[in-house]
Amino acid sequence: MATFSREDLLNVHERIKPYIHETPILTSSLINEIAECSIFFKCENFQKMGAFKMRGAINAILQLSEEDQQKGVVTHSSGNFAQALSIAAKSLNVPAYIVMPSSAPQVKKDAVKTYKGIITECPPTLQDREKTAQKIVDDKGATFVHPSNDIEVILGQGTAALELIQKKPNLDCVVTPVGGGGLIAGTALVVNVFTEKTKTIGAEPFEVDDAYRSLISGKIEKNESANTIADGLKTQLGDQNFPIIQKHVDSIIRVTEEEIKTALKLIWERMKIIVEPSSAVALAAILKKKKEFKNQEIGLLISGGNVDFNQIQL
Amino acid sequence: MATFSREDLLNVHERIKPYIHETPILTSSLINEIAECSIFFKCENFQKMGAFKMRGAINAILQLSEEDQQKGVVTHSSGNFAQALSIAAKSLNVPAYIVMPSSAPQVKKDAVKTYKGIITECPPTLQDREKTAQKIVDDKGATFVHPSNDIEVILGQGTAALELIQKKPNLDCVVTPVGGGGLIAGTALVVNVFTEKTKTIGAEPFEVDDAYRSLISGKIEKNESANTIADGLKTQLGDQNFPIIQKHVDSIIRVTEEEIKTALKLIWERMKIIVEPSSAVALAAILKKKKEFKNQEIGLLISGGNVDFNQIQL
Repeated sequence: MATFSREDLLNVHERIKPYIHETPILTSSLINEIAECSIFFKCENFQKMGAFKMRGAINAILQLSEEDQQKGVVTHSSGNFAQALSIAAKSLNVPAYIVMPSSAPQVKKDAVKTYKGIITECPPTLQDREKTAQKIVDDKGATFVHPSNDIEVILGQGTAALELIQKKPNLDCVVTPVGGGGLIAGTALVVNVFTEKTKTIGAEPFEVDDAYRSLISGKIEKNESANTIADGLKTQLGDQNFPIIQKHVDSIIRVTEEEIKTALKLIWERMKIIVEPSSAVALAAILKKKKEFKNQEIGLLISGGNVDFNQIQL
Repeated sequence: MATFSREDLLNVHERIKPYIHETPILTSSLINEIAECSIFFKCENFQKMGAFKMRGAINAILQLSEEDQQKGVVTHSSGNFAQALSIAAKSLNVPAYIVMPSSAPQVKKDAVKTYKGIITECPPTLQDREKTAQKIVDDKGATFVHPSNDIEVILGQGTAALELIQKKPNLDCVVTPVGGGGLIAGTALVVNVFTEKTKTIGAEPFEVDDAYRSLISGKIEKNESANTIADGLKTQLGDQNFPIIQKHVDSIIRVTEEEIKTALKLIWERMKIIVEPSSAVALAAILKKKKEFKNQEIGLLISGGNVDFNQIQL
């Protein structure tokens, strides 16, 4: 496993800064009262395209040679990373080939097209996605960028925590949702290098608790089902991010669907900001373990705000 | 009609400042692209209790003598002003008597109770509300504060526009939703005193277009029906605010329910902030009159963010 110095991590941030927003850190006295601790919400829902994924996407493209940039990048995703890679590529004038299952909602396909992503549809299995992406790599010479299991993506995602820690250097812990593992791995790298006392803690729905089980078994576990409102967290860990998570993540807290919905409503109603259900998983974890977090100063990564209002029922 | 100097209006702001948030001014490049102008959203959804009404409520109470403050304040409202007067009174240790129709949703009664408002229920007619409020005035010696037709309330509401104009002094116009008329009257007073070129423009649903019709007829008109998603705008103008609106408001734009919903979705999905349907009425008006507003710099008052997620269907 590669190691990274403060300078390495600061360089990543400098590199991507011109292409991202420095997102605000918000607090809610009412939520602090309920949670009995001080929570600093790092609001990546206000990031470009509405999620932290922009950070990793732009970093991955910027690390390519000019020649490779011209050949383009390819990923398979039906979620935020498809949009992130498209908009990141567009801002650098790089072609972005996006492999999407034909079953993906039209609204997601439209979003990618808005950002000039070039969509190739495929049957909705992981095998088909990978085969289709590989074909584009072979045909176009494009570089494959994995949404979460790519070290440059992981380092890019870590810059959200970097901005948080620069403003709030004395946090007891940083809590992030865990999906594919890119955000928490990047966060854990940064937290480990820049702070002494801050822990990195993950939050995961019981319905897709692969990361929780992976940490116990010591190998990457899969999810049998994926019946959660937190649709951004259905993906699984990879061989690039899992070792980082094993080494630097303190614990993973699991929450029920009801707990996620309660936390989601609290953020929407009290903070007046739109966050994805995935982001609410982190607050749900803090509320669940109130005693453990009591009186602490906690950083919480709001991962994104892309909500399909036709789908959601609170 | 009383007139107010710059100093008067600045004094109002100084008076209430310790009790309110200076709310942020946000922009969205995507919405600007769609609207073909530059819109500065003054976000009173992030105000204490989630709406601009806090400003007027606190100003009204602060203008009472200490003796009168001790006797308390009374209002009739089932909406944001009930909460605003309760929280404002609580922060000054003043009793707040809130007359609410017995038919008001439990969630609204609970919100008032959270802020220590003392609720008296009454039958759901305007006559009953007024009679019940009057009885409290007689019994307790409390001072009645109208949600929108009270000059101290109007002056308090105007401070949102004051903060906006201090940051953005060259706006072509400021657009606000029109309900009871307090916000737009306060805004128009401030805009008139502090700027040369800035116009004040109102936005109203077709379904409750009493202000539009009142400006034409020259007298306060009523609404026959009130079938709008913008439930904060169902109230009607009063004799305190109507003359101000007549004198200082440039025009009122009416929008359909579909136009309101489109604007609401745009704000929620693209700006990632929760605003009430009433607030979306102002954006709907700008989008409707695209040609008139083309390339202008526009201030837009986001009136509040108190949404009942059990009720809303986009």
